[in-house]
Amino acid sequence: RSGEMAKLTQLIDNEVFWAYATYTTIVLLKMMLMSPVTAYFRITRKAFANPEDTTSLGKGESAKKFLRTDPDVERVRRSHLNDLENIVPFLGIGLLYALCGPELSTALLHFRIFAGARILHTFAYLIPLPQPSRGLSWAVGYAVTISMAYKVLKTVLYL
Amino acid sequence: RSGEMAKLTQLIDNEVFWAYATYTTIVLLKMMLMSPVTAYFRITRKAFANPEDTTSLGKGESAKKFLRTDPDVERVRRSHLNDLENIVPFLGIGLLYALCGPELSTALLHFRIFAGARILHTFAYLIPLPQPSRGLSWAVGYAVTISMAYKVLKTVLYL
Amino acid sequence: RSGEMAKLTQLIDNEVFWAYATYTTIVLLKMMLMSPVTAYFRITRKAFANPEDTTSLGKGESAKKFLRTDPDVERVRRSHLNDLENIVPFLGIGLLYALCGPELSTALLHFRIFAGARILHTFAYLIPLPQPSRGLSWAVGYAVTISMAYKVLKTVLYL
Repeated sequence: RSGEMAKLTQLIDNEVFWAYATYTTIVLLKMMLMSPVTAYFRITRKAFANPEDTTSLGKGESAKKFLRTDPDVERVRRSHLNDLENIVPFLGIGLLYALCGPELSTALLHFRIFAGARILHTFAYLIPLPQPSRGLSWAVGYAVTISMAYKVLKTVLYL
Repeated sequence: RSGEMAKLTQLIDNEVFWAYATYTTIVLLKMMLMSPVTAYFRITRKAFANPEDTTSLGKGESAKKFLRTDPDVERVRRSHLNDLENIVPFLGIGLLYALCGPELSTALLHFRIFAGARILHTFAYLIPLPQPSRGLSWAVGYAVTISMAYKVLKTVLYL
Repeated sequence: RSGEMAKLTQLIDNEVFWAYATYTTIVLLKMMLMSPVTAYFRITRKAFANPEDTTSLGKGESAKKFLRTDPDVERVRRSHLNDLENIVPFLGIGLLYALCGPELSTALLHFRIFAGARILHTFAYLIPLPQPSRGLSWAVGYAVTISMAYKVLKTVLYL
């Protein structure tokens, strides 16, 4: 095991780590995009969660009617939460995977498929596309993360 | 301080980091498991959030009745969100802690108790066990993370 | 590119990384604080999500009335979720940014503004302050993260 991990510090300074940094930044930026998308739908659908957000729309009772849920806003929020649930494991497991010394081509394959699947998932959720588009794109990203977790545990398992 | 952190790069290549990688991967996989558990309850309870998920169950009005919340589904979702709220701090603070050069035995104690507490928390939430099972398992994981944060700030504080 | 990243392993052992570790630990601890704040409001407002949490308040029907949502509890929960949505990108992009060799003063500026903005955001959400306090504090943290992401992609882009 020491042999496999011995050159770990040198591995940070390599192309696998650059690829991890690139794709992680891309999927995190994609996730961050859900915040302005939520704001856009809240404003255009006039559906807010906080009283202080509706003061520009009227006073007293006339503003209260904008404190409501809207199907489009809720859809974007579910999509955002699904990103959190799936990108957080990628962030952690992907970092450990990148430090485990995988082949560059294998690592790129994992990172590219994950990023592509999450971007497709967002389109499938927001358009929305008919199922199983959203289910499949979710499953592909999930499977990539499991595959990286398997490689990490095979390399460093230390209980 | 330079002395304490001087050998940081070498520390990555050691057993504390392997232990961090192992337990982080385990708790992230455990968190990921909540997604198929949610899907299982959505399908068996016929309680969905998106119209496109109900098309296989019927057409028009007959499918609409499956767009509803279900107590079991909501319970799994709360458990999943609680994982996010607690495993994200472990992911970040645990990594920094592992890089701070703790004793291997101390680090293993922290990682093992955290992972055990989060697994217990999930059982306590989903069975559900009577309180204070869920509260205590949550508090133990929380205290472990605070303990690691204290060690990190004591070692590297740089404001 | 090799030149820019060549000394990456050495960079971990430096003041930028210590600053990252400090501010990341601070914002994660701040986020963790939302859990006891939620518990405080659930107990004082007697508004719970799980039947097993209400057993100490009465039996049968008399306990059921405490299974409800409360505006103050929901406000804290939205604030907590907003933390997750914004601190997770900071955790990942900030780590990669710290490894990209920024100037110490520039890095400190990013980390300090982000941490300050998130702390202000929590106060603006929980007091609550009139808008645009919350919106602006959110936007400042968001802009800092985008700025760090730009630096990461400019330094390591590897598609």
